[in-house]
Amino acid sequence: MPEHESLTDREAEALDAHWRALNYLTACQLYLRANPLLREPLRPEHIKPRLLGHWGTCPGLSLVYTHLNRLVSRRGQRALGVWGPGHGAAAVLSGAWLEGSYEELRPEVSRDEPGMERLFAEFSQPGGVPSHTSPSVPGSIQEGGELGYALAHAYGAAFDRPDLLVCAVVGDGEAETGPLATSWHANKFLDPVHDGAVLPVLHLNGYKIANPTVLSRLPEDELGSLMRGYGYDPLFVTARPDTPPLEAHRALAGAFDAAADRIGAIQRAARSGDADTTGGRPRWPMVVLRTPKGWSGPRELDGEPVEDTWRSHQVPLPGVRDDPERLRQLERWLRSYRPDELFDQDGRPRPEVLACVPEGDLRLGAVPEANGGRLLRELPLPPLESYAVPVERPGAGAHEPTRVLGELLKGLLEATAERRDFRLFGPDETDSNHLSAVYGASDRGWQAELLGTDTHLGRHGRVLEVLSEHLCQGWLEGYVLTGRNGLFASYEAFANLVASMASQHVKWVHSAREVAWRRPIAALNYLLTSHAWRQDHNGFSHQDPGFIDHVLSKSPDVVRVQLPPDTNTLLCVADHALRARDTVNVVVAGKHPCFDWLDLEQARTHCARGLGVWEWAGTERGDAGPDVVLACAGDVPTHETLAAASLLREWLPQLAVRVVNVVDMARLMSPTEHPHGLDDAEFDTVFTRDRPVIFAYHGYPWLVHRLTYSRAVHGQLAVRGYRESGSTTTPFDMVVRNGMDRYHLVMDVVDRTPGLGARAAGVWQRAADMRERHRRYVVEHGTDMPEVTDWRWPGR
Amino acid sequence: MPEHESLTDREAEALDAHWRALNYLTACQLYLRANPLLREPLRPEHIKPRLLGHWGTCPGLSLVYTHLNRLVSRRGQRALGVWGPGHGAAAVLSGAWLEGSYEELRPEVSRDEPGMERLFAEFSQPGGVPSHTSPSVPGSIQEGGELGYALAHAYGAAFDRPDLLVCAVVGDGEAETGPLATSWHANKFLDPVHDGAVLPVLHLNGYKIANPTVLSRLPEDELGSLMRGYGYDPLFVTARPDTPPLEAHRALAGAFDAAADRIGAIQRAARSGDADTTGGRPRWPMVVLRTPKGWSGPRELDGEPVEDTWRSHQVPLPGVRDDPERLRQLERWLRSYRPDELFDQDGRPRPEVLACVPEGDLRLGAVPEANGGRLLRELPLPPLESYAVPVERPGAGAHEPTRVLGELLKGLLEATAERRDFRLFGPDETDSNHLSAVYGASDRGWQAELLGTDTHLGRHGRVLEVLSEHLCQGWLEGYVLTGRNGLFASYEAFANLVASMASQHVKWVHSAREVAWRRPIAALNYLLTSHAWRQDHNGFSHQDPGFIDHVLSKSPDVVRVQLPPDTNTLLCVADHALRARDTVNVVVAGKHPCFDWLDLEQARTHCARGLGVWEWAGTERGDAGPDVVLACAGDVPTHETLAAASLLREWLPQLAVRVVNVVDMARLMSPTEHPHGLDDAEFDTVFTRDRPVIFAYHGYPWLVHRLTYSRAVHGQLAVRGYRESGSTTTPFDMVVRNGMDRYHLVMDVVDRTPGLGARAAGVWQRAADMRERHRRYVVEHGTDMPEVTDWRWPGR
Repeated sequence: MPEHESLTDREAEALDAHWRALNYLTACQLYLRANPLLREPLRPEHIKPRLLGHWGTCPGLSLVYTHLNRLVSRRGQRALGVWGPGHGAAAVLSGAWLEGSYEELRPEVSRDEPGMERLFAEFSQPGGVPSHTSPSVPGSIQEGGELGYALAHAYGAAFDRPDLLVCAVVGDGEAETGPLATSWHANKFLDPVHDGAVLPVLHLNGYKIANPTVLSRLPEDELGSLMRGYGYDPLFVTARPDTPPLEAHRALAGAFDAAADRIGAIQRAARSGDADTTGGRPRWPMVVLRTPKGWSGPRELDGEPVEDTWRSHQVPLPGVRDDPERLRQLERWLRSYRPDELFDQDGRPRPEVLACVPEGDLRLGAVPEANGGRLLRELPLPPLESYAVPVERPGAGAHEPTRVLGELLKGLLEATAERRDFRLFGPDETDSNHLSAVYGASDRGWQAELLGTDTHLGRHGRVLEVLSEHLCQGWLEGYVLTGRNGLFASYEAFANLVASMASQHVKWVHSAREVAWRRPIAALNYLLTSHAWRQDHNGFSHQDPGFIDHVLSKSPDVVRVQLPPDTNTLLCVADHALRARDTVNVVVAGKHPCFDWLDLEQARTHCARGLGVWEWAGTERGDAGPDVVLACAGDVPTHETLAAASLLREWLPQLAVRVVNVVDMARLMSPTEHPHGLDDAEFDTVFTRDRPVIFAYHGYPWLVHRLTYSRAVHGQLAVRGYRESGSTTTPFDMVVRNGMDRYHLVMDVVDRTPGLGARAAGVWQRAADMRERHRRYVVEHGTDMPEVTDWRWPGR
Repeated sequence: MPEHESLTDREAEALDAHWRALNYLTACQLYLRANPLLREPLRPEHIKPRLLGHWGTCPGLSLVYTHLNRLVSRRGQRALGVWGPGHGAAAVLSGAWLEGSYEELRPEVSRDEPGMERLFAEFSQPGGVPSHTSPSVPGSIQEGGELGYALAHAYGAAFDRPDLLVCAVVGDGEAETGPLATSWHANKFLDPVHDGAVLPVLHLNGYKIANPTVLSRLPEDELGSLMRGYGYDPLFVTARPDTPPLEAHRALAGAFDAAADRIGAIQRAARSGDADTTGGRPRWPMVVLRTPKGWSGPRELDGEPVEDTWRSHQVPLPGVRDDPERLRQLERWLRSYRPDELFDQDGRPRPEVLACVPEGDLRLGAVPEANGGRLLRELPLPPLESYAVPVERPGAGAHEPTRVLGELLKGLLEATAERRDFRLFGPDETDSNHLSAVYGASDRGWQAELLGTDTHLGRHGRVLEVLSEHLCQGWLEGYVLTGRNGLFASYEAFANLVASMASQHVKWVHSAREVAWRRPIAALNYLLTSHAWRQDHNGFSHQDPGFIDHVLSKSPDVVRVQLPPDTNTLLCVADHALRARDTVNVVVAGKHPCFDWLDLEQARTHCARGLGVWEWAGTERGDAGPDVVLACAGDVPTHETLAAASLLREWLPQLAVRVVNVVDMARLMSPTEHPHGLDDAEFDTVFTRDRPVIFAYHGYPWLVHRLTYSRAVHGQLAVRGYRESGSTTTPFDMVVRNGMDRYHLVMDVVDRTPGLGARAAGVWQRAADMRERHRRYVVEHGTDMPEVTDWRWPGR
């Protein structure tokens, strides 16, 4: 156990006073609704009727809070705490209340007796403050419910903040999760020159809900080997139930000082240019902090041990309202912190308790990065005119949408080269997703070994690639939550890997909007490409458009889904997404050559509307309205729909066809369900109230039904989309298998449009024959027939 | 590099011949559709028009295949290969073809020239064999598309198979994923007495798609430290581009022999009873195998290095059909394996090539565990009568459904104590989910340190708990894929963590049904509890019923969702799920006290129907049909619905109310969409065609709309459910917030039922007042008002 010689007894006692105050405030949050200073003996009516909260993790969290305070105060080191054991919100709230950052944000939770009572009473109560860290907790950037992301968030927060120290407390329960287990490797992506430092504190609390934790039951040398294998230099601090707290304070102060010294040395070496930039990687420090679960709480209950076991996980003494003996036990426990020494007559913390607390924005509850919107700046997005592709007439040319987007992102990376507030994240798919243009402006960041054959890998890159969607997502969350901007580009199917993380981020943003002092943050942006329809060489496992459905189930004030049909529309929706605030944007676009339908001006108008009639593709005459509506959303469905419209123009020239393209899926919803929703009158103007609508949709067809079931035309709606039929096969075979090919759409039109007359049966058969011909060609040749559509739109 | 002295030159050469044969067959699968033995110089028409596949990982996979063969042959050790780099299906197919296991399953892919040509031609082609490992690959138990699960699958396969060695090849790309990173810790759960062994082979291929891999760029001592920290004893085998293959064979044979020796020693010690069962954990061996990516393939192309770089990831020589020089380069490459030495005139492998290949079911493509249905036995499920709760009349009593289910699971664990073919998996939630009865039949399995204070932790337990949903899911998948049975019990919200894994498993099962030789496997069963409505102390982050939506988007031949409304129905659906084959069953049930509605016999009938009218709860008279239908699915919605029906009985006694309860969500679908779907006539009989239907549903309300949009009554349907409104609050406040409380349902009935007359307005107001009164009570008291419903059903 390292020992810090310079910590005097007085300093140690002041630290202990701060820690005791946090423990007192925390325990009281679980139990009390009155009598906060224990001016009188506890009575049942002082106790909350429902006891809810998690005590077990709190004393350890509080210990870190105390010592991080000390580190910040002594060194003037700006620090952000990431509280992985987010069930311990009471500890973090206690810290913020004690240091005064909480009352600055919410004056009603004042640093005196009434404020203390309010702090206690509203914790974990209906209409009050949730029991997990949430946006209402000052200094916290993560929802503490779903575990696994503390370290990824910490690294995301540290990127491009060279002066920041991010201290991430990782619970030993959380450490068992997959996302956390791979997050340790994030040190291979942290640039000591441009990024801040991450100090992980692995908190060996010993137990989860009802089981011991894996890491706490390893021999210390094995755990040390694991941490060194992850690339860290571990410092061990161990407290047992019988360890005198002052000894623990000395040990932890010493470890934090040693860690800070090493971090400083690493950063000075890297930033002075002395460091070896091609070979060795710095070995960043980390702390393994072992403390008893529920330390300083009740030792036992009814003869069973509580402290240092899983029994202290939640409320360690239940039933105190009804059992006078238990109530006395609670009172003894609370008084063991000697509240009279900690708070004055009015309930204000005494000066010695606050000796370790830093000032102003250095306080952990006031650090601006924890309320990232305070630091967010408008992105210098380059003008789309520089990237837009020329479109003489619809379908005359073709581009790879993501490749052109890559140029825009390159421009953005160039424009932010100095500011460093935009990053691109991906699971080793930037090349595969045709975004490689970005390497013209930034390397891929990489701190591990470099070889002569490597290309576009460098120490200072802002494109981060690691084969972990969880890390990509966690980094991006940490980055935007602390006031920056970014984009996560992924294969569409594998966005589902982070479905749960996306939900939690949506919940965060939704809740943060209700917290007055939280400032808007940049949107979390997904580009989903290499999508279901074009997984020619990967097949079935790579086909899953369900992330759209998942996201559209979540808070409508936050979620946005855009399906740009071509290159210029992709530029427009990307530009919009990168400027957005407090949203989660899902943009789905292909990487393969795609016909250009709209020029930049048309694309802007179309994307601003979110959906619209493409008159040039239809065959309506006059004001009679269409006989049939062909609707589409997504690049491949748009292609097939326009091909079908083209065939119908030739084969059934008298038929009035309307072509509608949808970019913004939420436009299909009612305005009561989503802020982008169209009202019924507008909707009916576009889709009609009673004509057949054949809707070719990028994803699972039932999504369109669920978005439109209340519309007048819904009974006339037939949706084609991905129906879980796929394999390693050709692009056209994919649309055929799922009934979304142009011929099938034509057959749908014939089937569903009344009064087409005798000619229609022939058209149906012709489409069926061509479909079958194509199918046979694929089986025989292993490729699709060459595309023959020549898009003869009349006189534009 | 360890060296195995006993490997003679002749043995090494025979191994090399096998390896070369695999490489030849693999490369040809990517390129050729004719001329499989290169009888004539390659011409463009011999080449496939679309070149698809992944060469880079294959030579390393093949090397392991060769040496695993040797291990099995020499020792008679039954082994299962888990091929993590699943993009390398061509290598595994080559192995199965060469050893003859493939032709036994598919005689048309015979071990001769025509069969070889077929092997090549159908690989990665439309209508052929997918390019990733899939159910069509003999000897494989995992879909190779989504990476991260190889090691979890391997451990799942090894549990309760004491004689099996599972060799898991982990790609260094896959190793970056979160699920894989935590899977290494599975050795803390592997019982050396009752379980088989897992031999992980970390294959350092060096590159992913376009980036180096993290682990391949660590110093060897750091990587060794990581593996030792994970609890393994690593053996390093390294081959560089210039390493003579025979040297690599000697090294790998030596490492495999050393590993097998150590595994044998560990198992003998544990099984003889000599091992220390309280202290030290065995240190299982693992192999770090470094080979150049695309080893033995083209060294360079157009002056750029290909072998040993990311450029060999997919097809290393593109454009061979159009470029004569490239075509010659391909031919030189293929001939470098000296096919004449490997295959005879007829294309049959020569005997020396097969020297290392084991016989019969020991062949890697024929091992029964890889086609788990071959080994699956009917579970000895105890009779439900022993567990069912008595129900004198509906609502007279209440039980915690999962607690009673825990008794059934205990009975099943007892009945399988000898067979050991059933396991329970959970993320440290077995206690929390009220399933603790199972500890009466089995400990929780645990191989790390044991303390005197531990309870129900032991070396041989079949309840496995680790705070990683990915591990739980991966273990269960591996367990059922190899012919066993199991259940994964989780908090409902966090099932979303494994949404993507669930999709992939559904895809596997769906595809396996189309492979004639695959035998049905046991269902993959989820029990989702601690659900959205009862997260009183956790709040918003723990509320997400979206897993149901996710699952119901997938192949309807596989997915099943059951929402039992009470204890006896939970027993029935659990019993059914545990007997099911080739399905994925999601059962959602609460853990809190829940009124008992149906006795066992009624529950059986109701669950067999999947939905039904609860006449006793309604107020219909005669055959006139109802004025309004109250439908419900899920325990909390059922409770609120019955409470609403009870209020209506009192407040609007003339109103004919029908109560419908839905257990099997797929019953709402059309039979064309799901095999459990009701046809329209049946559906209309239950729900009517034209009466208002107020549907209280457990999850997101739009799911019910998407399942029923084509029904006649749909325009009359109002669905209440979870609408993303939650916090740390009381149970009743939760239903109020989301508009699903009994009072709101009554108000809905009044709003939507025509012709109710003057009295209705008063009823509406009364419900609104009671709702408001309850709301105020919650805010003032922090708890719900006591439940007052006394369920006075008439004369039952």
